[in-house]
Amino acid sequence: MSTKYTLELRPDKKEIKVSKGENLLACAIKAGVYLNSSCGGDGVCGRCKVLIKKGDYKTEPTGRLTSEEKKKGYVLACLTTIQGDLTVHIPKESKLDLAKISDGDAQFLRLKGIYSEAEEADAGKAIIDESIYSHSPLATKVYLQPPLPTLEDSISDLERLYRELRKTRDIPIMQTGLTNIKRLGSLLRHSNWKITATLGKRNETTEIVVIEPGDTSNRNLGVAFDIGTTTVTGQLVNLNTRKILGTKATYNKQVAFGSDVISRIIYATEEHGLERLHHAVVDNMNDIIRVLIEETKLNLTDIMGVMCAGNTTMIHLLLRVDPTFIRREPYVATANFVPVIRAAEVGIKIHPRGLLACVPGVSTYVGGDITAGVVASGIANEAKTTLLIDIGTNGEIALGNREWLVCCSASAGPAFEGSGVTCGMRATKCAIQGVKIKDRQDGIKLTTIKGGKPCGICGSGYIDILAELFRNGIMNKNGKINREIKSKRVREGKDGLEYVVCWKEESEADSDIVISEADIENLKCSKGAIYSAAATLLKKVGLTFKDIDQVMIAGGFGTNIDIDKAIMIGLLPDIDRAKFKFIGNSSLVGSREILLSYQAMEKAEEIARKMTYIELSVEPRYMDEYVASLFFPHTDLDKFPSVKEAIRGVRSK
Amino acid sequence: MSTKYTLELRPDKKEIKVSKGENLLACAIKAGVYLNSSCGGDGVCGRCKVLIKKGDYKTEPTGRLTSEEKKKGYVLACLTTIQGDLTVHIPKESKLDLAKISDGDAQFLRLKGIYSEAEEADAGKAIIDESIYSHSPLATKVYLQPPLPTLEDSISDLERLYRELRKTRDIPIMQTGLTNIKRLGSLLRHSNWKITATLGKRNETTEIVVIEPGDTSNRNLGVAFDIGTTTVTGQLVNLNTRKILGTKATYNKQVAFGSDVISRIIYATEEHGLERLHHAVVDNMNDIIRVLIEETKLNLTDIMGVMCAGNTTMIHLLLRVDPTFIRREPYVATANFVPVIRAAEVGIKIHPRGLLACVPGVSTYVGGDITAGVVASGIANEAKTTLLIDIGTNGEIALGNREWLVCCSASAGPAFEGSGVTCGMRATKCAIQGVKIKDRQDGIKLTTIKGGKPCGICGSGYIDILAELFRNGIMNKNGKINREIKSKRVREGKDGLEYVVCWKEESEADSDIVISEADIENLKCSKGAIYSAAATLLKKVGLTFKDIDQVMIAGGFGTNIDIDKAIMIGLLPDIDRAKFKFIGNSSLVGSREILLSYQAMEKAEEIARKMTYIELSVEPRYMDEYVASLFFPHTDLDKFPSVKEAIRGVRSK
Repeated sequence: MSTKYTLELRPDKKEIKVSKGENLLACAIKAGVYLNSSCGGDGVCGRCKVLIKKGDYKTEPTGRLTSEEKKKGYVLACLTTIQGDLTVHIPKESKLDLAKISDGDAQFLRLKGIYSEAEEADAGKAIIDESIYSHSPLATKVYLQPPLPTLEDSISDLERLYRELRKTRDIPIMQTGLTNIKRLGSLLRHSNWKITATLGKRNETTEIVVIEPGDTSNRNLGVAFDIGTTTVTGQLVNLNTRKILGTKATYNKQVAFGSDVISRIIYATEEHGLERLHHAVVDNMNDIIRVLIEETKLNLTDIMGVMCAGNTTMIHLLLRVDPTFIRREPYVATANFVPVIRAAEVGIKIHPRGLLACVPGVSTYVGGDITAGVVASGIANEAKTTLLIDIGTNGEIALGNREWLVCCSASAGPAFEGSGVTCGMRATKCAIQGVKIKDRQDGIKLTTIKGGKPCGICGSGYIDILAELFRNGIMNKNGKINREIKSKRVREGKDGLEYVVCWKEESEADSDIVISEADIENLKCSKGAIYSAAATLLKKVGLTFKDIDQVMIAGGFGTNIDIDKAIMIGLLPDIDRAKFKFIGNSSLVGSREILLSYQAMEKAEEIARKMTYIELSVEPRYMDEYVASLFFPHTDLDKFPSVKEAIRGVRSK
Repeated sequence: MSTKYTLELRPDKKEIKVSKGENLLACAIKAGVYLNSSCGGDGVCGRCKVLIKKGDYKTEPTGRLTSEEKKKGYVLACLTTIQGDLTVHIPKESKLDLAKISDGDAQFLRLKGIYSEAEEADAGKAIIDESIYSHSPLATKVYLQPPLPTLEDSISDLERLYRELRKTRDIPIMQTGLTNIKRLGSLLRHSNWKITATLGKRNETTEIVVIEPGDTSNRNLGVAFDIGTTTVTGQLVNLNTRKILGTKATYNKQVAFGSDVISRIIYATEEHGLERLHHAVVDNMNDIIRVLIEETKLNLTDIMGVMCAGNTTMIHLLLRVDPTFIRREPYVATANFVPVIRAAEVGIKIHPRGLLACVPGVSTYVGGDITAGVVASGIANEAKTTLLIDIGTNGEIALGNREWLVCCSASAGPAFEGSGVTCGMRATKCAIQGVKIKDRQDGIKLTTIKGGKPCGICGSGYIDILAELFRNGIMNKNGKINREIKSKRVREGKDGLEYVVCWKEESEADSDIVISEADIENLKCSKGAIYSAAATLLKKVGLTFKDIDQVMIAGGFGTNIDIDKAIMIGLLPDIDRAKFKFIGNSSLVGSREILLSYQAMEKAEEIARKMTYIELSVEPRYMDEYVASLFFPHTDLDKFPSVKEAIRGVRSK
């Protein structure tokens, strides 16, 4: 055994024993303190900055810290090894806040039945009526009182059970496991031949999942999950009544190992990497389930089924399937259609024999989350041609109607989710979400989530800032800040010019909250990726934005953005605003629909098979579209007539 | 920890450490020395007699030992507890010889392809031609070289695998487990896209059982088992070519816990009882598999499937399913149709993901062994009306043709298998198998298996003795020995009169080999149970023995009996000898057929569903039939005209 040192983490006051030479980032995670780390510990992103208060350590040189920071004692945790007892201060901006977002707190991620009650009432209508699909959940409970065996009717217990079940419903292929058979004889007799069988749909087969004594048929719960790269959301549902009993969201703990799927795939190749990523998301899901059960005072063991919608990488990591080949040409997933398994097989704590199903994905870069979204949006059932944009880290886009469906995926990156940008943060309390610049000099009006003092900028805040900077001529269409502007907010930073959004004194941050030209470049690439992907997809099928009957914007992100401003920066196309619908977390709604209806699962399978996936990287016109969209709003201003009009008005002032 | 004493078992020279108060029978089993114990350790059968050489012990009073035996130091192991260091001698007749019966030794249990090469050549023809059923084994290996993925053809690895498999065959419902999916990505790439998939039939679904790198498709083995109450037989088969690679039999180790199913069911209710019975048969199977693999120099992990035929209790114990309810009215099994599971689930050591299937049973007392027998005999495919009698401990009987099938089960008991009778032994080396009484005085000619000095009497020996005693008027039709006979062989024994078959000096036994009136009573009940069951079954369908086109005798037992003598004692009906066919271990042949053909499995399922089970205990005429058959050959001698003729001839001498 090597010498053990004490690592103290402030301000959390957490202490753990560590060995000489251990990595500081890994130790912090071990201690339960999650640091930001977009690059997965490669020393590239500079997000895991910590301050050494005292003790022995070794750290590698890095260009991600200023010489002033280095003088003060800042290091990157991922590049630092422990050489003795060590006390470290974790600055607020380096810390990944893993606190649960309760229903009440969910101002941004609108979780109560996906939407808030009033504000997005119209948006709610965009979601299809639940009754489109038959009520045939992943798990069904049936109370049975089979006739007692007699000398004349002495078929075996298992056949008696099958016969009784087949009286209640048509079940062509039925099976059960040895565990249930082992218990069956005494169970039937001790329960006086009154039992409840839970039937589970395992692909084409109906499984007797579990047999319980007495009548428990009114206790049948399920949890629908949307496993996002950034956020994991779970919804507890009564599988008998379809009633939503609660919704919880939490950050995906995997963020500590990289903010986007690519960095996580890379991390998965490291020693224990896959294991850690797997456990992170399973922990998330178990946490959510536990809180949902505690709040509703229901029983964990009454949860008989879990449905998951997530992008292909998230599903691979959930199942502990190596995602390596997803990022190697020709970009192939191990499985897009995953068989139904027992939730316990991946460590999800519900009924020990409860089932876990995953919504099928279309392709490597269009996962079950978009399939679920298409199911939820109903676009595959409608005559109207609809464009569905899921603004997440991966920017999945689907297009079509009940006749045809195409889709693609844009590598949007996590910028709009507050990652990879200097002062970016996730959309939680005290994040700047709305910005209005009153004049070119110093007048600026900020709105934060829950109204506290700002400590960073979230995605909708960045959209507003970009639109306002552009509209006011502070930033030009290339994304360069106008150094002629006479404002103390415009200044030279370490990454070129920057604009101060909020002074340190007015904030809760450790320094001024700024947007740099590097940040703008980053955001420009993100918005350009989404817009050009949508444009390419349309061209591929011979349509333009004008031919679209409606545009559905999905993603936790999508419920709060200013549509005019999103158009102004060229994130969304400049078409009739009435055509836009926010459908919130469509992946979660779809996941729930599929949990509640095998018919919806069949629809999802049909969509996943039928939807044509367009790999943008092999589309020659995509690169042209992308390059053309790397302007605010676009290189061709005629594509954005309302923006052309708006900036003419403002700039002529 | 309690004090540890040393238990020495002679003549095996085995020593183990035991605790004070431990049961001697249990300790002997623990030491690997299996004692006879028909009653399961209840002190009733008196078969576990051992001689204490020295040491401390406590033993309960018993009437199963003579006072002379008690004086010498004999005790029943099951009634004895250990109180100090102990040395015990195990007499040959108390010991259950668990030695493997190799192909060469199998004179009685004819194991080489079920039959010996010449002697039973005719009997072999009774077994239906293998080609009746399509070649579609439980496990199939398919070598695949799927096309490499490209940007244009980038479906997931699993879908690619499914697509490739569906090019080779029609597979409507296909599934695989998470374990295979986890390995799939790197497996495909490291094997350069050359893999072998093993497909398993799991009821209606085709499972990808395992995926291996390279081409292993020529290595695909299976083992068919007949799990008898007394003997476990296994046959190694090449699943690709249907070639039989070897056959091994061994005593069912469960015999140590009771010789018949009822005493084993009772034993199963004791603490650890079910566990022990389960492990005993699994040990048997693993032993057989290991020897088969060693002799053929093949790989254990190339065994992909195991098929088991056995009576309902044997299958319950194999699966570790509580058999309690089998012997409680209304006599219901937990399952007659058992789903296909992984062999590893019950501890059978083949490929870790290899499958285990059981031949479906008809009812609680007519198990998969008789279904397998019906499949093997082909009676369900023939126009001829056939009576199939499986002479085992449970005496299953089937009757019918391709139009209809009925069956029943006679509680024959283990007497014809050499258990529950004074000098009975199983049909192995030095067992008396043939007897010819030359005169009423002392002239007797004995034949033993493999020709050694006699040490006991096996089933066919008992048939001969009974027939000879009866024919010579030494025993009357009630089974009573004629005390008027002037022969030193007839004498008073402890259970009434007895007849000395072989003097101690001419034998290898510890005392004279005798048949007592109690033994005769026992054998009479066994033969009466079988005959009357067959007669009742015929009457039930409005037929008599004369209407039967053929009688098939199955069971390891059946290959060696003298048909005339079996008729003389009234075990078999007195009809044209040409109608009798010995079909050997039909259960094993059926098990193999079903292992090799899913079509045969479907036939077995059809038979198990279609065959009408007649519960004899509720048939009013059965008791009359049974009582009438408790004579040699029968109370109504006109039913046995050839016997009537034969005894008239002899007795008139």
